[in-house]
Amino acid sequence: MPTSPDNLNSTGEREIIREIISSLESFTNVTIPPGDDCAAVRLDSKDEELLLTSDPVFAGIHFDDTASPDQIGHKAAGRVLSDLAAMGAQPKWVLLNIAAPAVTPPDDLVRIVQGAQALCTSFEACIVGGDVTRAESLSVNAFGCGTAPAGTAITRGGACAGNSIYVTGSLGDSRKGKHLSFTPRVAEGLWLRQNTYASAMIDLSDGLATDLRHILESSSTGAEIQTHSIPVAESLEMMSVPDAINHALCDGEDFELLFTVPKEKASTLEDEWRKTFDLPLSCIGSITHNTGIVMAISADGATSEMTAEGFDHFGKNNI
Amino acid sequence: MPTSPDNLNSTGEREIIREIISSLESFTNVTIPPGDDCAAVRLDSKDEELLLTSDPVFAGIHFDDTASPDQIGHKAAGRVLSDLAAMGAQPKWVLLNIAAPAVTPPDDLVRIVQGAQALCTSFEACIVGGDVTRAESLSVNAFGCGTAPAGTAITRGGACAGNSIYVTGSLGDSRKGKHLSFTPRVAEGLWLRQNTYASAMIDLSDGLATDLRHILESSSTGAEIQTHSIPVAESLEMMSVPDAINHALCDGEDFELLFTVPKEKASTLEDEWRKTFDLPLSCIGSITHNTGIVMAISADGATSEMTAEGFDHFGKNNI
Repeated sequence: MPTSPDNLNSTGEREIIREIISSLESFTNVTIPPGDDCAAVRLDSKDEELLLTSDPVFAGIHFDDTASPDQIGHKAAGRVLSDLAAMGAQPKWVLLNIAAPAVTPPDDLVRIVQGAQALCTSFEACIVGGDVTRAESLSVNAFGCGTAPAGTAITRGGACAGNSIYVTGSLGDSRKGKHLSFTPRVAEGLWLRQNTYASAMIDLSDGLATDLRHILESSSTGAEIQTHSIPVAESLEMMSVPDAINHALCDGEDFELLFTVPKEKASTLEDEWRKTFDLPLSCIGSITHNTGIVMAISADGATSEMTAEGFDHFGKNNI
Repeated sequence: MPTSPDNLNSTGEREIIREIISSLESFTNVTIPPGDDCAAVRLDSKDEELLLTSDPVFAGIHFDDTASPDQIGHKAAGRVLSDLAAMGAQPKWVLLNIAAPAVTPPDDLVRIVQGAQALCTSFEACIVGGDVTRAESLSVNAFGCGTAPAGTAITRGGACAGNSIYVTGSLGDSRKGKHLSFTPRVAEGLWLRQNTYASAMIDLSDGLATDLRHILESSSTGAEIQTHSIPVAESLEMMSVPDAINHALCDGEDFELLFTVPKEKASTLEDEWRKTFDLPLSCIGSITHNTGIVMAISADGATSEMTAEGFDHFGKNNI
């Protein structure tokens, strides 16, 4: 091995992959570990369903120069873990494709994997594969596999008129750095599925205003939102209330869970949630028959149609 | 829907994803189709193991300006299908993360997916998810899941001294365009596993000289190669023999299968192969006890140590 290799040009791709593989730790249900053409894994039981998802993080789009390699890895893994959480799945296996400029120090790649691994390990998932390639700019594409008992995964399509709408945590501080350090709500998603509280669920990646519409579309329903009940992040408290609410509605990348609950289960959910989690839970409104329409009700009782669009990478709301 | 949107700036990300999802066709064992936070899929039987792999294709590295969107999609899916083939797995589910400059016509993205889908469908696999994001240059990251009866997947680690070494097809014309139109050897990999012929297997992505070493490393063995038995692509026939063999050994991206077979099974394999496949099969040498050493034996009986290194994205053999 060359002494102190300082970039991807002087260290070979295979040497870096070898270093990354040796940095991987524990494996669960992995029968062929990383290093072959594929990894092989096994389900715990034949009654399990497999949940599959993939997400990219690109320099200049999903993170900027201030993000550390660990944070980039955390975000890459966190995005797929958050998708799995939104189905109520147990995350199991993650693969990471890293593309980086040739001048990147190999240690940065190892730290990206370590950032992803630390987060995966905290939810009993493990990294079982991936790839390293050269590219003009840094990107990580993550692929996540999780499991849930067959037929129990929580889709976006189960919301019914009368259901209460809940959101976890607080919203609107993704731009203050939370998007690089968020905790995907895996534990909460699992708990909601196991206790059959949620009729529909999604994670907030595009912003509440947009992600709520995904539930409404899939469920063919509408919604009424009490804007004063939206849990606005502390960091927005210096803003005017409408400005803060707009950030909470539209900024995206909060990675909290948005879910609906049948009215008769709502009070038990709230009691049991408080006994189980420190994370705040807010009821922000209810599902209506008014398909596709979101009515906003402010603290003084004024109602208006909510037209705000969340973050769209290619649309006019680009940041 | 806007009339004739001409790039990703004028058409929203979600509109493009919707168009892509509607272009997807058949699903096998898919209980929650694309469009939710995750897709949900089921195994056929509890005795199956899951094979997981991921590969990137980036503009300027894995394809150039002459590649059509269909070819880019074909190559992206083909790389993961080839990895699955190399384990003897049945490909099942593929996810595609596409990153593209904002000026890309949305139709190009749909055609990338269609190129990938056509190849997946031909092997009874389906595309169940992915993502579209903006980036400086075009890239596709593919993730593949396949299945095999538990414990039967063919690793790189099973080669023993005395085993014969086989390679499918012909080598060395990846630069002539084959790398964009290759057929992953899924049918052949499945057949080799089902008939328990292969003791170790790998697909040729980095070049025979390098990929053979992966088998030798994993199996703690060496090899003797009859260089005149290496199946050189017709397109190289105008070259001198050593030049042609060097291309066949080092160019990479042939996506043929390289595998080892116990001596006592070799003649049956050859007979049965000819009855089953039109694809040529060549015995190019045998596995030795000489750990890590590859001896090349030329047509005149001269022997030399083979030191050629295959394609390494970051190393000194870059193209």
